[in-house]
Amino acid sequence: MQILKLGGSVVTYKDEYMSAHTENIERLAKEIAEADSYPLVIVHGGGSFGHPVAKKHKIAEGMVENSQIYGFSATHQAMVKLNEIIVDTLLEAGVPAFAISPSSMLNTKGKRLHELDTGLVKDYIELGMVPVLYGDAVLDSEQSFAILSGDQLIAKLSNDLGADRVIFGSDVDGIFTNNPKLNPDAELIEKVSVGNIEANVGDTTHTDVTGGMLGKLSEAAEAVKGGAGVIMVNAFEAGRVKAALRGEKVIGTLLTL
Amino acid sequence: MQILKLGGSVVTYKDEYMSAHTENIERLAKEIAEADSYPLVIVHGGGSFGHPVAKKHKIAEGMVENSQIYGFSATHQAMVKLNEIIVDTLLEAGVPAFAISPSSMLNTKGKRLHELDTGLVKDYIELGMVPVLYGDAVLDSEQSFAILSGDQLIAKLSNDLGADRVIFGSDVDGIFTNNPKLNPDAELIEKVSVGNIEANVGDTTHTDVTGGMLGKLSEAAEAVKGGAGVIMVNAFEAGRVKAALRGEKVIGTLLTL
Repeated sequence: MQILKLGGSVVTYKDEYMSAHTENIERLAKEIAEADSYPLVIVHGGGSFGHPVAKKHKIAEGMVENSQIYGFSATHQAMVKLNEIIVDTLLEAGVPAFAISPSSMLNTKGKRLHELDTGLVKDYIELGMVPVLYGDAVLDSEQSFAILSGDQLIAKLSNDLGADRVIFGSDVDGIFTNNPKLNPDAELIEKVSVGNIEANVGDTTHTDVTGGMLGKLSEAAEAVKGGAGVIMVNAFEAGRVKAALRGEKVIGTLLTL
Repeated sequence: MQILKLGGSVVTYKDEYMSAHTENIERLAKEIAEADSYPLVIVHGGGSFGHPVAKKHKIAEGMVENSQIYGFSATHQAMVKLNEIIVDTLLEAGVPAFAISPSSMLNTKGKRLHELDTGLVKDYIELGMVPVLYGDAVLDSEQSFAILSGDQLIAKLSNDLGADRVIFGSDVDGIFTNNPKLNPDAELIEKVSVGNIEANVGDTTHTDVTGGMLGKLSEAAEAVKGGAGVIMVNAFEAGRVKAALRGEKVIGTLLTL
């Protein structure tokens, strides 16, 4: 079983409010269909849908005043809209996708995944379907609500479902010696140990409500420790996701123990 | 706690494919906001969104061939679209609605609700929110998938959450001595015992994939037996839903033991 993450920077125009990157989504849907590598679970990020709404209403920090519940719901609604576009496009491309709403099936405790029965996700997979989940605004038993990142969800799914490989698709080739968008001398690291990962990584150009690159890597490290092969690839480059899904050699960064 | 059902004939134009009755939805959202009667759970039907897709792909009867999984997913997608419109409209009207996806939290066994932990729904209510659920295409442990009617969901929620009152909003004033759309002499029954209900009820003009009026009534009977006051009102008539939510006397049919 493989898990594919489609980062928010891949499926949306990050600088345009609630703007889906339909061109990327359509191309990726075709690549996923052509790869024909099932079983598969897809998790996508929020990009310009979930993040700006969550930020505006300070959802990640939990409930301070009652009026935030409208913003909490609006954050989820934004993610539903993005998920709808992605699932519809996958279905059209011939991928048997099925939309799963994280806030309807789990909660967090102090921003960490608390109660999640992955049995239902497993049932969809066993039926031959591709569950499509996402980072979401969810109930939190300590702070009323929180933002659950797609990456945290992936770590849990990977370990619970025993994923063989997790593919993180983003807008860069992988992990660099420095931020490639700011430093032309930055070099791609082809293989990196999750043990000393923090020393090797700068910050991403876009900060988000779920913790940026460092947060992503610490979640990815959990999947590695659980036994999954984890690779980060550039989902903007045609063919990379397809090759990764097929287990072919591809430009990217492999995370090891 | 009250549960409000908004029938598919109320929130959609039943004869126009995937056409939301935005005028009704907006008016009802305002009535619900003005009624200010919380805690509240809303469940809506499928109308011209879920039903035609489910029918086309024969989802209610379960999986016969693999290709149906696309239709199964498409049925859910149709319901997500309708739910999105309803929740967005409720939020705009000032109702703290939150979208809950039944297929992400439950399954059925032989078309009957099987595994559903209503704890999460309860948590949304306790946070001051109004969970908005719907009839959905769901996993079924015997026939792979099935259609769960909003009415069956209501019976379960009513009993699990201990609802005081369940209000069924449809396109007729209540239960008649005969089909009021076909027989001008049909009279409204103001109070009817669920014990001998089948003898009193004809069939509805629109059959749907979830069992029509008889199915609706047998589910409603479960809620009555569980201790809820159940009333059927005409949600097309301005003010009826608002009055019912407030517990005021309103034209309709009261179901009793």
